[in-house]
This record gives sequence, C-alpha cells and structure tokens, in this order.
Amino acid sequence: MRATIMHAPGDVRVEDRDKPAVRQPTDAVIKLVAACVCGSDLWPYRGADKISKPAPMGHEYVGIVEEVGAGVRNVRPGQFVVGSFFASDNTCDICRSGYQSACVHRQGVGGAQAEYMRVPLADGTLVATPGMPDAAKVPSLLAASDVLGTGWFAAKAAEVGPGKTVAVVGDGAVGLLGVLAAQQMGAERIIAMSRHADRQALAREFGATDIVEERGDEGVKKIKELTGGLGAHSVLEAVGTQESMLQAIHATRAGGHVGFVGVSHDVALPGRDLFYSHVHLHGGPAPVRQYLPELIDLILGGTINPGKVFDLELPLEQAADAYKAMDERRAIKVLLRP
Amino acid sequence: MRATIMHAPGDVRVEDRDKPAVRQPTDAVIKLVAACVCGSDLWPYRGADKISKPAPMGHEYVGIVEEVGAGVRNVRPGQFVVGSFFASDNTCDICRSGYQSACVHRQGVGGAQAEYMRVPLADGTLVATPGMPDAAKVPSLLAASDVLGTGWFAAKAAEVGPGKTVAVVGDGAVGLLGVLAAQQMGAERIIAMSRHADRQALAREFGATDIVEERGDEGVKKIKELTGGLGAHSVLEAVGTQESMLQAIHATRAGGHVGFVGVSHDVALPGRDLFYSHVHLHGGPAPVRQYLPELIDLILGGTINPGKVFDLELPLEQAADAYKAMDERRAIKVLLRP
Repeated sequence: MRATIMHAPGDVRVEDRDKPAVRQPTDAVIKLVAACVCGSDLWPYRGADKISKPAPMGHEYVGIVEEVGAGVRNVRPGQFVVGSFFASDNTCDICRSGYQSACVHRQGVGGAQAEYMRVPLADGTLVATPGMPDAAKVPSLLAASDVLGTGWFAAKAAEVGPGKTVAVVGDGAVGLLGVLAAQQMGAERIIAMSRHADRQALAREFGATDIVEERGDEGVKKIKELTGGLGAHSVLEAVGTQESMLQAIHATRAGGHVGFVGVSHDVALPGRDLFYSHVHLHGGPAPVRQYLPELIDLILGGTINPGKVFDLELPLEQAADAYKAMDERRAIKVLLRP
Repeated sequence: MRATIMHAPGDVRVEDRDKPAVRQPTDAVIKLVAACVCGSDLWPYRGADKISKPAPMGHEYVGIVEEVGAGVRNVRPGQFVVGSFFASDNTCDICRSGYQSACVHRQGVGGAQAEYMRVPLADGTLVATPGMPDAAKVPSLLAASDVLGTGWFAAKAAEVGPGKTVAVVGDGAVGLLGVLAAQQMGAERIIAMSRHADRQALAREFGATDIVEERGDEGVKKIKELTGGLGAHSVLEAVGTQESMLQAIHATRAGGHVGFVGVSHDVALPGRDLFYSHVHLHGGPAPVRQYLPELIDLILGGTINPGKVFDLELPLEQAADAYKAMDERRAIKVLLRP
C-alpha cells in the first residue's frame, strides 16, 4: 500500500509499505477514506521535534473497517468509523472519568496518511456512524477525529457556557473549531485572535463576535479593553508556545478558566504569574473519544460544519505538497484522499 | 503603640510606632486581640524575599473595632471581627464571583503583629462575630483569617468532595488545615505528606487517614501505590517550591485537580509536564473573605478546632522569638498576644 513517511525535517515522501494486519485480538484494520495533516505534524516538519527514524505520519482519520480481531465487539467490517488519535480501552477508571487520552492502556495511533491503518483497542477507540455517510459529510467527520474534538475539549476545559466571554488564542484549525465549540456551548461573546483575513472570516462564520489582531501583551491589553478591564471568563489556547500560554493566562480574569490544547513546546510557566492570576488551568491531549458520539450527531444532523477548515484537498500521492502548503500557511488544513 | 518590624533577614524587633488612624471613610481601626506569624513571613526572614525598608509585619488578625470611617456600614466599634489578608470591596464582579483576593480594589493588609491596625475597605474585608466569642475560640478564629481560609481554598480549588482521595503536600499550618478542610468536605481518604511526628499526629487528628513520609519522586511513587497506580483525585499544595508543585502535579491522576496555595518561589512549570498530566491547576492567594462567615459558624458551633495549629503562644513583645521558633521548626505556628 501507499503511505506517507517523514524522513527528516521538510522531507515527506509517499512510499510503498506493507499493508497492516490485525496483530492483537483487539485490533481493527481500516481502509482510509480520508486523512489530513495536523498542525502538530509541522513541529517535526520544521525541525522543532526530533525524527530519529523514518516515521509513518497521520493520526486523524475516517475509514471503512476492513478486518477486526477476534475480541472486537463494537465495530465490524464494512462500517464507516471515526477514530481518535490515542487508542483507549474506554473502560478503565481514567477513561470512565472522561480522559480517554490518558487511558491506562493508552497507545498512540499513527500512519493514517496512508491507504490502510491498524487501530489498536478498536472497541474503545473507534465510533461507527449509523450507515454510510454522504460524501459531503466526510470532511466534517474527519475534523471530529482531532481538530474539532480538540477545540471542543479546549472549550470544555475553559468552562465555556452561556453568558460568558470567550477568547481564542490561535487561528489554526483547532482555534477556529474552538470558536465553533464555544458558539455551540452558548458563549455570549467570542473573541478570535487572528491577523489573517481568511481565518478571521472563517472565525466569524463559526461564531466569533470580535476579532483581535494584536498579539502578546498588546493582545492581552485589547482583550482587557473589551471586557471592562477584567479579562475573558474563558480563554482557549491552541498554539503551545510560551507566548501563547502567557497570552492566554494574562487575558483571563481572576477566577476564569484557560483551556490549553496546543502541544507544549519549550514552555516554562512562571509560578508567580500563575499564582497571582487566579486562573484555572486545564488542558492536554484532548479525550476526543469522549466527544465523538455527540460530535458525529451534530455533524450528521447538519448543526455544525467543521469540515470548512479544510481549504485544500489533495490526493494522498501529493502529501508532500500538503505539508508544504500548511507550513507556508497557504492552507489552514489539508485533506488527503487515498 | 508597640508593633513588630522586620529590618533585615533574621532581624525582627518590637518597637514604638504611631497608633494608626482612620484615613479613608471606608477604613476601620481595630485593637488586636491576637495575631500570628505566617509561613510566608519566613520567606523574607530567611532572605528569600527582599526587604527594601523596615517592614511592619503580620496579616492574620482578630480584634475589636476601635473606630470606623464615615462610610463604614457593616461593622461598628466594640464588635469582635475576623479579617482577611487582602482588603476587598466585596462588591465588584471579581469579588462577587468569589475571588475577593483579586478584588479590583484589592489592597494589602499589614502590620497585624501590633497593638492596633488600620484595615482598608472594612465593610468588604471584616466579618463580625455574633457577640463576643469565648477566649477559647480566639485561636481558631485567628486561624480562619489566613491559614484555615487558605487550606479551605486549597481544598475547594482541588475540588475535594465525597468519595475522593486527597493528598496534601506540605505539613505547615496551611497543609494541616487543608487536611481538616478535606475532612469537612467529605473526602474518603486523606493522605498527609509529612515526616514530623508532631505534625503527623495533628494531621491524623484533623482527619488524615494515611501518612506518606517520602518526598519528591519517591513521595509521588508512594501516592501512586496507595491509589491503584492512578494518583489522587485532589492534591493540595501548600509549600510553593518547584519540588512541591511538581510533586503535587505528578501525584494527581489524569483529570484530577491540584489546588496550590503555597506562595510561589522560583517556580517554572514545564509545559509538557502540565500538558501530559491532564490535571486541573488552580490556586493563588486564598479569597478568605468568601469563606469567613461559614468558617466562623463552624468554629463557634464547635464543629472544627483549627486553633490547634498554634502550638506556641507568646506575648507580642517576644515576636522575635516567635519567628525564631517557626524558622527552626520548633513550632508549627505561633500566636502573639498584644
């Protein structure tokens, strides 16, 4: 089969690989319908994360179940499934408390930018749609498997709710879908921080009521101006840098909540800032599995259309171009079709 | 009047100072009945905080109202009052959300280790007891003004509740009263981290079900062993160092809560630790004012006896000995009588 492999920073190739097989009785093998490039894939692409050996890429996926192990009960061959980027048993204490991405049997899921992939712990990781979805819904279902689920978790972690003012740091797909999540959760006001016209437009479409173009301390000042000097009730952080984390913390009012989902890179939070800010801080890899049933319902029912974050679609064979387009910020997010 | 002044690390003196007067219409002047030395007073005493000029010390207090400004409505001369260490208006949006220690008109309160003190924003800062309390209740009421209120906030911030396993990092007065708070809030199991027999005994009296003597990574390992490998649901941090913060974060299960109230010193939290720990982090200077009415009720009703943390009582004139006893850990907490 064909699969996307990262050999070194900037060096992504689509190559022949063995088709994966069921190895454990809890595995499933799926034939991918669509996959995509993640903002977090750009960290190694840009050399910010080490690549020790050629790495099969991709962890966002929808597909058709091809084969399941003898122990799999919840999905069967022929079903359309949406998965999450950590495999989880969905039965341990941690999963049952809603943190499937910290499951005691957690396993990474990888190699989704390919024709086929193996998904461990299939029963606790995959969610089948009721019947075969329309082709038009595929991008949105694909978004649910990571960026939507992650934006959703950020909004939950930031305790977004009716009557609240929400600010979103980061205008990538996750930040934009954080805006959508905040809107769905009833936020009164949603401030998107972005300096790109196309992303601003999508943020507004997803529910943003205000746009702030400033960053860092200037951005914080602007948020305070918009909130009577107090800061936002809820701030979603979807970047993962020191600047974005401090921007989020400082833009939050005392007693407010920061939901952070940007994969943390070289961040060291000063204790005093945290102590005197009086914010609640919560985040990490999103427990997407928790939200999949609800998100799939919202998508299939036509309530939300998160697939709009895909502004470029390419055949799998052009995966290298997909990385390039995202790296150069020519595309918000690229969908790949095997 | 006599007042305690810190001139330099290790140099605490009781000296003559002008008796404070009402300056603003919202001020009250109180005659102190009791004050005490705080764990946070030891930071400058040990040279960890700078002392730029001679500093009047003390921010924990109970007393009798001597005089009030023309605008004060809620307390009157002759009343016994308990105060908090930040003055707050108790009417702004931040106060009404429960964060009086981040009041938009917040002012520090100081100079309580003295005969008299001025309390700004008296209406929003002081709470009068119903009638004159028994002398036996004074230490507990004094504890409410900081260490109990702070331990209480740590437990609230860590979302302690029925059925939960709680760990407490720090065996000073705040940590010990965090144990008491956790017990009052219905925790199923309370693990106190302490290696001092006298503090362990008091922790058990306050409700600790387990004691862990190990610190750092060893302490974390022990907490995991006691919690099926998962970590505690709620961890209270009452020290303020890098080691204690990481100990608290690592001892908390995914999805659990850390309540941190130790005044942060040289702490820089690694973003990746926070990100992958999946904990909720919340803390800061405790909004003691929020809890005072409830705590006063519990104390006067005889439900709790937090005054037990005072294991040494000295006349104000011996304030220097009080600091020395706490610095050398010969006393958990010293009560001063003017």
